[in-house]
Amino acid sequence: MIYWLDLFGTMVFAVSGALAAGRKNLDLFGVLVLAVVTAIGGGTLRDVTLGATPVFWITDPIYLWVASIAGLITIYLARHEFLHRRFLPIADALGLATFCVIGAERALAFGVNPAIAVLMGVMTGVFGGMLRDVLCGEVPLVLRREIYATAALLGASVTVVLGMVLPGTALATWLGLLCAVTLRLAAIRWNLSLPLFVHQPRG
Amino acid sequence: MIYWLDLFGTMVFAVSGALAAGRKNLDLFGVLVLAVVTAIGGGTLRDVTLGATPVFWITDPIYLWVASIAGLITIYLARHEFLHRRFLPIADALGLATFCVIGAERALAFGVNPAIAVLMGVMTGVFGGMLRDVLCGEVPLVLRREIYATAALLGASVTVVLGMVLPGTALATWLGLLCAVTLRLAAIRWNLSLPLFVHQPRG
Amino acid sequence: MIYWLDLFGTMVFAVSGALAAGRKNLDLFGVLVLAVVTAIGGGTLRDVTLGATPVFWITDPIYLWVASIAGLITIYLARHEFLHRRFLPIADALGLATFCVIGAERALAFGVNPAIAVLMGVMTGVFGGMLRDVLCGEVPLVLRREIYATAALLGASVTVVLGMVLPGTALATWLGLLCAVTLRLAAIRWNLSLPLFVHQPRG
Repeated sequence: MIYWLDLFGTMVFAVSGALAAGRKNLDLFGVLVLAVVTAIGGGTLRDVTLGATPVFWITDPIYLWVASIAGLITIYLARHEFLHRRFLPIADALGLATFCVIGAERALAFGVNPAIAVLMGVMTGVFGGMLRDVLCGEVPLVLRREIYATAALLGASVTVVLGMVLPGTALATWLGLLCAVTLRLAAIRWNLSLPLFVHQPRG
Repeated sequence: MIYWLDLFGTMVFAVSGALAAGRKNLDLFGVLVLAVVTAIGGGTLRDVTLGATPVFWITDPIYLWVASIAGLITIYLARHEFLHRRFLPIADALGLATFCVIGAERALAFGVNPAIAVLMGVMTGVFGGMLRDVLCGEVPLVLRREIYATAALLGASVTVVLGMVLPGTALATWLGLLCAVTLRLAAIRWNLSLPLFVHQPRG
Repeated sequence: MIYWLDLFGTMVFAVSGALAAGRKNLDLFGVLVLAVVTAIGGGTLRDVTLGATPVFWITDPIYLWVASIAGLITIYLARHEFLHRRFLPIADALGLATFCVIGAERALAFGVNPAIAVLMGVMTGVFGGMLRDVLCGEVPLVLRREIYATAALLGASVTVVLGMVLPGTALATWLGLLCAVTLRLAAIRWNLSLPLFVHQPRG
């Protein structure tokens, strides 16, 4: 079940990467690259810094196939407003929640301390989108907008803490997922955001 | 022979990095960094994700020397139109072909499955140029222009497939090289390109 | 003592990352990310390419805490001109010197050859700032401005060479630090810079 959610998250992130490529008028290869990079960027950074190499998509190439195919299909579906307005934000919240929870658990399984596991969860959730934006020549959206990374932080924290209190059950995983999705959807619904740090040096 | 081609590819990519630095008015250090990053970026990502660490230029620093010296010499040669118009595109095609074939073979030698080996070949060929463009504040050229990554894909695929059919000969390597160079040069000559994915959301 | 200097360097680089976030109007999470990325980016690249994984901040999370807290405090101190005009340039020179010397020594301890150790030192010193600028959508400052990387190069070289001549003493470390700080401060004071490589293709 978690595995399927993970593949679903990969698909959703690939779609968001391909849509970004469409806004920048990239060619077919550009669409593929942005889809794949967005989908696997976070997990790759996690595995590389942990030293869990070869990274997950080398061990299990299904992730690459899912991301590539999702990216290509997106080209044909991109004209439907439905995809942008309804499906994507909700699917993206699910993808984010899955990635942060799975990222944290993978780090824990690798034996890191809890604070690092939380960080790894957040990184898995947000780094792919940051790469997408940098490749498109933009300041990463996640650094300036509403409660996005914060939802990942909540989800990963809940999973890690509950996993210590109640080891051996799946409760930690599911509650982490639920918290992250809920906070993210609430942030979209009511336009919640973190305070901006606006500073212009006077000189 | 392959080793020399690899060093030649390193040199060519370093030249293209240094020329990009020249267009952005970077200082001497900037030229060096862009030359080296363009030349070794692809192979570094390949080795790091494979877990083949320390990466190749730590094991064999000759790559760093070649890239640095090529970058510095470029400063003095940059005024010659010849370099831009004639030498660079053809040399770049050779460098790309070499990198994608060698990248794929190195991944195979590391024991990954064939599809991943092809991907590693493409990554080795194009990632250095993507880093160069991102450091220059531009959307990577390879994501929007003519058949570039596609040539790398062809070369790596030919090498990997032939290497399975006819193991133990150098035929796979040379045919992969030939295919990649040919497709790339044909794309330059006749201005071939992949279809663009142009999408402007209506809302 | 060196350990404390290292934490000090982490703090200073985090402050510079947070200030960059302030200029771009990022939110709270953006400030945290830029602070942490600037502070640990160089060391992370060093460890990942060396294969010294898990990377240093997984083994010793104190670096993450220092960077995060320094980033948050910066938000409250950012209005003081003093921070920008006086403290930051000098502290940054100290941070750069520490990072390049420690980076070189860590690489040496890992058994790489001297030239690579020097490169690793420079990378540790400058890569965090390059990531900061790329995330802010700018061409990295270090590629175009005064003697910055050059100071890191000097410090790392002095440490590596002296460390071979006089092994087992701390002299190499301290002299490397001193050289890097001195050159950097001199460059600020007298506005020294490397020649630019200006090239506009005629065609």
